[in-house]
Amino acid sequence: MTDTPDNTPVRPEARAPRGFADRRGPEALSERRIVQILAPVYERWGFEPLETGAFEYADALGKFLPDADRPNEGVFALQDDDEQWMALRYDLTAPLARYAAQNWETLPKPFRRYAYGPVWRNEKPGPGRFREFWQCDADTVGSDRPEADAEIVAMALEGLDALGLGDGQAVVKIASRKLVNGVLEAAGVEGAAQTLTVLRAIDKLDRLGMEGVTLLLGEGRLDESGDFTKGAGLTRASIDAVLAFLSVPAEAERSAVLNVLDPILGGTRSGAEGLVDLQKIDRALTAFGVGQAARFDPAVVRGLEYYTGAVFESELLADTRDEKGRPVRFGSIVGGGRYDGLVARFTGQDVPATGASFGVSRLAAALRAARLDEAAAVRGPVVVIAFSDDDMPAYMSAASELRAAGIRAEVYLGRAGMKAQMKYADRRNAPVAILLGGDEIAAGQVTLKDLDAGRAAASGISDNEAWKAARPGQQTIARSDLVRAVKAIIEAPSIK
Amino acid sequence: MTDTPDNTPVRPEARAPRGFADRRGPEALSERRIVQILAPVYERWGFEPLETGAFEYADALGKFLPDADRPNEGVFALQDDDEQWMALRYDLTAPLARYAAQNWETLPKPFRRYAYGPVWRNEKPGPGRFREFWQCDADTVGSDRPEADAEIVAMALEGLDALGLGDGQAVVKIASRKLVNGVLEAAGVEGAAQTLTVLRAIDKLDRLGMEGVTLLLGEGRLDESGDFTKGAGLTRASIDAVLAFLSVPAEAERSAVLNVLDPILGGTRSGAEGLVDLQKIDRALTAFGVGQAARFDPAVVRGLEYYTGAVFESELLADTRDEKGRPVRFGSIVGGGRYDGLVARFTGQDVPATGASFGVSRLAAALRAARLDEAAAVRGPVVVIAFSDDDMPAYMSAASELRAAGIRAEVYLGRAGMKAQMKYADRRNAPVAILLGGDEIAAGQVTLKDLDAGRAAASGISDNEAWKAARPGQQTIARSDLVRAVKAIIEAPSIK
Repeated sequence: MTDTPDNTPVRPEARAPRGFADRRGPEALSERRIVQILAPVYERWGFEPLETGAFEYADALGKFLPDADRPNEGVFALQDDDEQWMALRYDLTAPLARYAAQNWETLPKPFRRYAYGPVWRNEKPGPGRFREFWQCDADTVGSDRPEADAEIVAMALEGLDALGLGDGQAVVKIASRKLVNGVLEAAGVEGAAQTLTVLRAIDKLDRLGMEGVTLLLGEGRLDESGDFTKGAGLTRASIDAVLAFLSVPAEAERSAVLNVLDPILGGTRSGAEGLVDLQKIDRALTAFGVGQAARFDPAVVRGLEYYTGAVFESELLADTRDEKGRPVRFGSIVGGGRYDGLVARFTGQDVPATGASFGVSRLAAALRAARLDEAAAVRGPVVVIAFSDDDMPAYMSAASELRAAGIRAEVYLGRAGMKAQMKYADRRNAPVAILLGGDEIAAGQVTLKDLDAGRAAASGISDNEAWKAARPGQQTIARSDLVRAVKAIIEAPSIK
Repeated sequence: MTDTPDNTPVRPEARAPRGFADRRGPEALSERRIVQILAPVYERWGFEPLETGAFEYADALGKFLPDADRPNEGVFALQDDDEQWMALRYDLTAPLARYAAQNWETLPKPFRRYAYGPVWRNEKPGPGRFREFWQCDADTVGSDRPEADAEIVAMALEGLDALGLGDGQAVVKIASRKLVNGVLEAAGVEGAAQTLTVLRAIDKLDRLGMEGVTLLLGEGRLDESGDFTKGAGLTRASIDAVLAFLSVPAEAERSAVLNVLDPILGGTRSGAEGLVDLQKIDRALTAFGVGQAARFDPAVVRGLEYYTGAVFESELLADTRDEKGRPVRFGSIVGGGRYDGLVARFTGQDVPATGASFGVSRLAAALRAARLDEAAAVRGPVVVIAFSDDDMPAYMSAASELRAAGIRAEVYLGRAGMKAQMKYADRRNAPVAILLGGDEIAAGQVTLKDLDAGRAAASGISDNEAWKAARPGQQTIARSDLVRAVKAIIEAPSIK
């Protein structure tokens, strides 16, 4: 608090910086629950945890080199007291690259590591778009084997399954930079500009269908708004080669996809290499017991300028809906691929690496939309009502007994009356309120108020007579019976 | 990578910013394990999780107001694109204050929340002194009841117990700002300067003993180096009052301490109030089943200019030793107290609050020193040796089977020979290496190498014949027996 010249204290306004969210109660547990489920999966596969600091030197982060005019472009950067620029990590791959380069000689190789935590991006915030969010990554550094790719895909699927997204609710689609190079070779695509136009066309298959892609591969396409996009100018034969590459049935088995691609790409150097890689990936996935949850889909063009081999991307098939029940689609919640340039920025030496990243914050939103967010179902504590200061020890003992039995419990410690305390218990989403009046204490009794029954009554559900008989709203029992009776209420089928 | 004028690429050096640590493997798990043990304790007591962003507006953080010349004093601060200064949180209390002030009207009150995560301090790093470390806090906002203080203390002890520091290995010492005010009143101490001198003298009891404190309360003290510290200049009677206040036996029960203090402080307004508070805290602790692990110790002078009521501070009694077996002392690993100014900076209104903070990073170091860090004991994965590319599916299936049985397992995915693979397995701290040569696969067999047995042989332990018989270094068994045999090795008593 600073004083203005006339001595009126100036009070700061209590507000969070733009793009940073506060989360309280069950909402704060969603991301934590996800990483607590994913971490044991990674560890079971032999991946080691790695924790690095929030800051990296800006030159080590690489992607965003700050300059004096605009040091914060994309990242949160500041100058250390020795004048060196540091920036908060914008993903978990850049710190891995720095760590691997720094410790390469002494690491067990291949080096399998996982990591999770917040990353920061200095971008314009918007609805559902934050400047701080969580990722959870697994990478294998130092293995050029396609089996390492297969492992990353199988782990991602095991993680999704552990989160409740098994049984066909999510698939991982696998493609390969080498296959794309093969089809470019087969179609006679030449030069960076034409390559880019073809890749962009392929990337639009989802949105424009085969017809639109055909136009973009040829002369060009006029969209509904009248804008014309110039095409790649391929010949009919070249276009057909690309279309054949893309026309793999979505539900086909992995080996069937390879059979379709072989005649198209087998004759090209890069395509043939890519096919051998995918055969090995298929073989490994099968050994891991992974069936149709992992598919080959040549149309996945994920950051192809970055990846050097296989690329993977999840697709959520679960029924996801917003709060109003309208269907919503979520983009890729886990994706990655093989990239060889990981440590080359530091050492000049290519090291093969492959990995995938879970967008934990987006995954949390997706689980909520799929009504699979178990954290959201967490109940509040049992609340012991405080009537009199003198009887505080009786309230405290009751709460202690419940906690010792593993039940969340607390004594109301404000100064409000009975009515406000009941309202408090309701707002805490308490299942039960414990009433220990002076008479009850003297008689060795306790009264339990079933707040779920109360909520049901308020919503009219409890008109059902059978239900009412099973759930008396309020009961006075022997004090010695407290834990058993509270457990019975908490474990009763929930009312919805 | 940037190019110099002569086109030699300039490569950044791979290094972490000063004061930020990398932690790999078991070391990376220590802090995570601690918060995963503390969080359920807090939740059982009815505390809700709260997550806020890493940044706060600098004016909201308050303690460190950046100016244009030196925005980074103590915190990591930077200017947002709207020119507002933001800073990374330096503790978890400041974000709570901002959040509580911002949401006070809509929060259930009293508001019990816990939080954990990294905090950042822009200070000079040194050995064991980092600029990023973890805290784990619990606070109750909106309750002036001493029972709320007792709850914080009891929870802290329950947390320490859950971490393996029960049974007298840690105590929490409780004092009170009000008691100190009482003794200052009883001793006739007046004015801010004299008060400060007396508090400083009390704070040195641990180091200088009663004799040194007596000198500092009186005329002053000459230390060994010849430096003279001017004393508070109290009269003999006043000094005696302070000494009586401090001469509570360290092992005394809480009620006995109150009996000693009553005649000294009962006559003062503030002291009498403080005694009533401590009586209630004692009563609540007793109801919670907390015995001598929570003590009253008037000599604890913890940030008294900040706290307004009870203060608490843990003392570790466990046998803590450094890597060379030398005893090491750890400062307070959990501490806190009651403070009423939490939201006043924002709202101008005092709201009673009480809480405690675990220094998670320091606690992790203490648990290691007490050899209680279970994360450090985590074993590496079982490693399946890769002999031939063709047999990869057989290796993958074996690893999958082990994982399905809950055993950490991986296939070696590098390109090195058998000897290097065994070295890799050893460096991963693998308990077992799985050998599936072509002959073994054909015969439906598998060979297990007990790497612990190998380590024991290397260290001479395995000369014990009985032990050797129980742990054959290498065994070839039926492939169908894989999981059982690996489990038997992993679960065998460890060799030290």
